[in-house]
Amino acid sequence: MTLQGNDSPVKIGIVGLGTVGSGVAKLLVQEAERVQRHAGRALSLTRVIVRDLKKPRDCELPKGVISDDVSTLVGDKEVRLVAQLMGGTDAARAVMIDLLKSGKDVVTANKALLAEHGAELFDLARELGRCIAFEASVAGGIPIITNICQCLSANQITSIRGILNGTSNFIVSQMEECGADYSGAVKEAQLLGFAEADPAMDVDGTDAAQKLAILAHLAFGAHVHWAEIPRCGIDTLETIDLHFAKELGYRIKLLAVAQLSDSDQRTGGLDLHVSPTFVKIGTPLAEVRGANNAVSVVGDAVGNVFYQGLGAGQMPTASAVVADLIDTAVGRAQRTFQTIQPWSRREALFQSRSPELAPGRYYLRLTVDDHPGVLAEVTGILGRNEISIASLIQHEPRSEDGPQTVPLVIMTHLSTEGDVAQAVAEMDQLDSVMQGTVKMRVLD
Amino acid sequence: MTLQGNDSPVKIGIVGLGTVGSGVAKLLVQEAERVQRHAGRALSLTRVIVRDLKKPRDCELPKGVISDDVSTLVGDKEVRLVAQLMGGTDAARAVMIDLLKSGKDVVTANKALLAEHGAELFDLARELGRCIAFEASVAGGIPIITNICQCLSANQITSIRGILNGTSNFIVSQMEECGADYSGAVKEAQLLGFAEADPAMDVDGTDAAQKLAILAHLAFGAHVHWAEIPRCGIDTLETIDLHFAKELGYRIKLLAVAQLSDSDQRTGGLDLHVSPTFVKIGTPLAEVRGANNAVSVVGDAVGNVFYQGLGAGQMPTASAVVADLIDTAVGRAQRTFQTIQPWSRREALFQSRSPELAPGRYYLRLTVDDHPGVLAEVTGILGRNEISIASLIQHEPRSEDGPQTVPLVIMTHLSTEGDVAQAVAEMDQLDSVMQGTVKMRVLD
Repeated sequence: MTLQGNDSPVKIGIVGLGTVGSGVAKLLVQEAERVQRHAGRALSLTRVIVRDLKKPRDCELPKGVISDDVSTLVGDKEVRLVAQLMGGTDAARAVMIDLLKSGKDVVTANKALLAEHGAELFDLARELGRCIAFEASVAGGIPIITNICQCLSANQITSIRGILNGTSNFIVSQMEECGADYSGAVKEAQLLGFAEADPAMDVDGTDAAQKLAILAHLAFGAHVHWAEIPRCGIDTLETIDLHFAKELGYRIKLLAVAQLSDSDQRTGGLDLHVSPTFVKIGTPLAEVRGANNAVSVVGDAVGNVFYQGLGAGQMPTASAVVADLIDTAVGRAQRTFQTIQPWSRREALFQSRSPELAPGRYYLRLTVDDHPGVLAEVTGILGRNEISIASLIQHEPRSEDGPQTVPLVIMTHLSTEGDVAQAVAEMDQLDSVMQGTVKMRVLD
Repeated sequence: MTLQGNDSPVKIGIVGLGTVGSGVAKLLVQEAERVQRHAGRALSLTRVIVRDLKKPRDCELPKGVISDDVSTLVGDKEVRLVAQLMGGTDAARAVMIDLLKSGKDVVTANKALLAEHGAELFDLARELGRCIAFEASVAGGIPIITNICQCLSANQITSIRGILNGTSNFIVSQMEECGADYSGAVKEAQLLGFAEADPAMDVDGTDAAQKLAILAHLAFGAHVHWAEIPRCGIDTLETIDLHFAKELGYRIKLLAVAQLSDSDQRTGGLDLHVSPTFVKIGTPLAEVRGANNAVSVVGDAVGNVFYQGLGAGQMPTASAVVADLIDTAVGRAQRTFQTIQPWSRREALFQSRSPELAPGRYYLRLTVDDHPGVLAEVTGILGRNEISIASLIQHEPRSEDGPQTVPLVIMTHLSTEGDVAQAVAEMDQLDSVMQGTVKMRVLD
């Protein structure tokens, strides 16, 4: 789409009129004047493709635009810009390919599609001289993709730490603030619409890992598939660890982290993971509550920039999709797409390194038999694995822990994931250590 | 500058090699490869204009680029993109005009220049088909201008609340955290390089008002000159008010606020002001410490998006300038400039309304004679001005307040600036009220 010097309306298609699609239609129809002012020309909603024509919709549409036949959109040469808002990956991939091949630029919010088939789709778009914009695929209303690809372009980004899954953050906030246990907090989240009936992909870290893979591509030119990212969700989180976190001055957050250990070293320096993490109370990430998302970015020139906003929901996500439609209508999105070449096959700038080498501090909670000599055994294992102890808590036994079992909490100094994992494996072999030891990262 | 399909180097000029100029030169020279990758072509530093050739510089420059004669840059037809980083307004304005007239696109960080001469310069650039980019003029490393003009383009922004002056925020943080009084905190800020030798423009609210005027132009299409914005700085802040704030669960922040009271009403609905404000502890704005800046933006689709970062300093500001240079080299900045027409003469979308009508809650601290009947007089005045009291604090007299004088603190419910000002004027006439009553806004 070449738009310069042309102020005729841009004909827009939407595929999928679910929650986000309806929000996009609302903005295009009800706020047409505003959109025109910000795009420099009208964006005219011309075709809307749905699966079921009979389903009631909560948005007004211009007459005659709706159809259940995607080929009418694909075949319409006048529509050259489409918001592709289908969920899932296989059918969505096929439609994306058809749209690109028929000469259309595409905006999508489908992070799973990009995480799974991004390389293929971006290559195809480049080959065809088309553009894919995808601001809504990560962190909903926070425009983190444009900020990384454009606003912070003077920087080498050295660190991204994100709360990228609002469902998980809501659940953990509920556990922390209301004392709910995990399953109670999930039910509350479902009641309030912050969790799906089956929230597995949200709470097990998959969703956050898919988003992190997209950000790692953009900020570090890393070629990484989301499934390669070590991840742990919040679905095994216990309230006792939230209590210990608070006692130690931390909150637990499900963080998605991409961290360059040494920006001078062009290989082997990128640590990626998704895991529940101790974050110091009073720092911006620790204070992100409820269904909010947040991203803390460090650039070597700009320093730390922190973003917070709604990570999901109809209108925040629609805001990002419509911003992409406007960017494409104005002609900015194409230039960014041509320039930064996302997911290109050029040599990776940074490669993710073996997770065992990632440096970090850790919280360990052991459930130990309250007998003499236990502490010596545990600290002996830590010592042999070169892990030094920053602090240690052992309270008087509580009646509900059973007669002879107590939690032993250890905060380590800087160590590596591999050493800590090895030490935990050894500790869990001890006769005096009951249950599996709980291990969480600590953010400095 | 038309760049499409052209990957020859872009020749860049810099005017002014002070702190920010040196930072920009560092990024262009030392990080040339990165800049080229993000711009899709090389940015080649070709001319640097300084006032004093003999002054030592802390950045390496390519050979032969430095000169003290700006006409060599203005006359160089090959340099079509210039970072104009002179301070002040009159000479800077003249150079800007020469650069634009000689066919160059210009990037500037000079907020005072834009606040004073923006209308003229933007009109001239439009007339000449040139582009001015100015991300660095507000909030340093926070890319708030691109976020408002581009990333949030699907929204009508309804509220901007910013901590836009890092010097003031540093001073207030020092007073709060270390118990320093105002003049002690200023000295500390000067020692650490967070305040100028003469910090008047920072601490009296001028700097924040100039930045707010720029944001109000962009977010609300308001035609407003910074000097019209009601402003109060932190230069009269007393530690006693910080103590009362804390007791009431607030911190005091110098906020720059642009707030649309009713987005359906196209006239008379924009409230603008800069003033020390009570902000609830635990909310993101309240937790912004030291020399940081922050901006909380509400859009009608996206909801609240919060940004925090370094508001000044060599490299954060250079990060914003170089991002603008890259945006212009890529061709995005021109499209944004053409599309949104900043400072244009088209009809104002929203007009700032009379400050007296602005709704708000207030903190009032009276110094009263501790005699019977005082509270009746004070509350009588509030009642007659239709101001209702949300809470009231009167502690036992302290010896240092003198034998008969006590502070009386009142938090009001929602009222208007005009009613509260009237009530304060009446209260200050009472014989039992000593000194002037202190009045501050409260953010809900």
